[in-house]
Amino acid sequence: MNYIELKKQIEKKETLLCVGLDPDVEKMPKHLLKNEDFLFDFCKEIVDATHDLAIAFKPNTAFFEAHGHKGWKSLEKIAKYIKEKYPEIFLIADAKRGDIFNSSRMYAKTFFETLPFDSVTINPFLGKDVVKPFFEYKNKWVILLGLSSNPSAYDLQLIQELETREYIFEKIFKYGSWWGTENNTMYVVGATMAYKLQQIRHLAPRNFLLIPGIGAQGGSLEDVCKFGLTEDYGLIINSSRGIIYADNSENFAKAARKKAIEFKEQVGKFLEENRKRRRIR
Amino acid sequence: MNYIELKKQIEKKETLLCVGLDPDVEKMPKHLLKNEDFLFDFCKEIVDATHDLAIAFKPNTAFFEAHGHKGWKSLEKIAKYIKEKYPEIFLIADAKRGDIFNSSRMYAKTFFETLPFDSVTINPFLGKDVVKPFFEYKNKWVILLGLSSNPSAYDLQLIQELETREYIFEKIFKYGSWWGTENNTMYVVGATMAYKLQQIRHLAPRNFLLIPGIGAQGGSLEDVCKFGLTEDYGLIINSSRGIIYADNSENFAKAARKKAIEFKEQVGKFLEENRKRRRIR
Repeated sequence: MNYIELKKQIEKKETLLCVGLDPDVEKMPKHLLKNEDFLFDFCKEIVDATHDLAIAFKPNTAFFEAHGHKGWKSLEKIAKYIKEKYPEIFLIADAKRGDIFNSSRMYAKTFFETLPFDSVTINPFLGKDVVKPFFEYKNKWVILLGLSSNPSAYDLQLIQELETREYIFEKIFKYGSWWGTENNTMYVVGATMAYKLQQIRHLAPRNFLLIPGIGAQGGSLEDVCKFGLTEDYGLIINSSRGIIYADNSENFAKAARKKAIEFKEQVGKFLEENRKRRRIR
Repeated sequence: MNYIELKKQIEKKETLLCVGLDPDVEKMPKHLLKNEDFLFDFCKEIVDATHDLAIAFKPNTAFFEAHGHKGWKSLEKIAKYIKEKYPEIFLIADAKRGDIFNSSRMYAKTFFETLPFDSVTINPFLGKDVVKPFFEYKNKWVILLGLSSNPSAYDLQLIQELETREYIFEKIFKYGSWWGTENNTMYVVGATMAYKLQQIRHLAPRNFLLIPGIGAQGGSLEDVCKFGLTEDYGLIINSSRGIIYADNSENFAKAARKKAIEFKEQVGKFLEENRKRRRIR
């Protein structure tokens, strides 16, 4: 999927929602656990109930891997299901891979050939060597960890370099602009870091940003939209728990749909404001 | 496996060898490719031929994931095979995972419960939150990416912090000493960075270091041993390609064994020197 297709999907659906698929047996509806492939069944019901209200789905590999090869089979099944049934959806593997040389090539093969993902979250700690193999695939995307929303983001991402006085997270955005383009590179920016978004938009004016941390982690949708939206939208806003665990009875999918509708209403206001602001200029 | 058990295994086997299991269909013996589970069969023959000449095996998850859920089944099979047949072996998942909160908990579950690994390589970019769930398992190990051997290690690991003037890789060793202990934390240090080992030994005097990059990537075994060995040995030296692809005929396992014997002879000299040096003091 390319930049224009993603933008068009946002225009058509009037939302920025990415639904994070983190199937956790401790939180999912108990009645599903008796099913042979409850990971897939849970995700499928969420996907079917929200696909017209979301621009992206983001399976988190950790929650599938915890079940071993059976979990990987469920991951494959849901990724293929989404791409076949809802081909307009932008499919993100939240895998946070980051290796070098042949290993990185194998991870690119995993997510872009063996599995039908459009994009993978990538940990840039080992530098440019990590991303090179991913860029060999056309219309596929690298989503670099830019600035995360967890407390220990301060350990490395928010320290400054001696030579340039740049913060490490700023270096990631700068490197990203050297390594890739706005047509193959996005960044993860935690919603709790919304106060940094103006600064980030100077470094990545047109790149799409994947924003986790709205709701459960305390990020503000208003701030994210105010400082993050561009004329091409440029934001994919993830919600996992807030949507998929809205209810854990047999009505969980309906409850998820309701939450996705609420999100569309909330974000619609900010999309409209963004449109007005840009017309005025 | 604990520190003492690992040390005793080194004493018994008189080697520091870790055999990296990177099963690449383009490099492995062609006659195996007709087998139903050629990933497992290839690794099993290597393991059986070298287990008495190695202290550790290190399957690299990337090479298994590239085959989807079937690859994960092979990974599970080889991990279980090694732990059941050769329980003294230190088993490393070279997975380079690095996520936070529940995702990190799921990765810890994956490698320490679903799979029988003793240790996992961990990317510390997102800070302390990444490692916490792994430390909840007794006698299991986190192997932090300290200083890698690839050209783009200079992008982040070899830049200096403004406030402390420490290099980022030094901060990883410092953080590691705050987050964990020498009984649950090791570090990856690329062999091409052997000139930094004296400095690293000040920061991590007793921790085991996992050293890739001997041979193929140009690292010197002599330098690594000279600057890295401690009185508890403290080194696990990985070789992947140099051992497992020594030959790609039907004799590949014998050739791997021969290479492992050669390594034992080479490293034996340095182990002896280390012993003498320490007696003199």
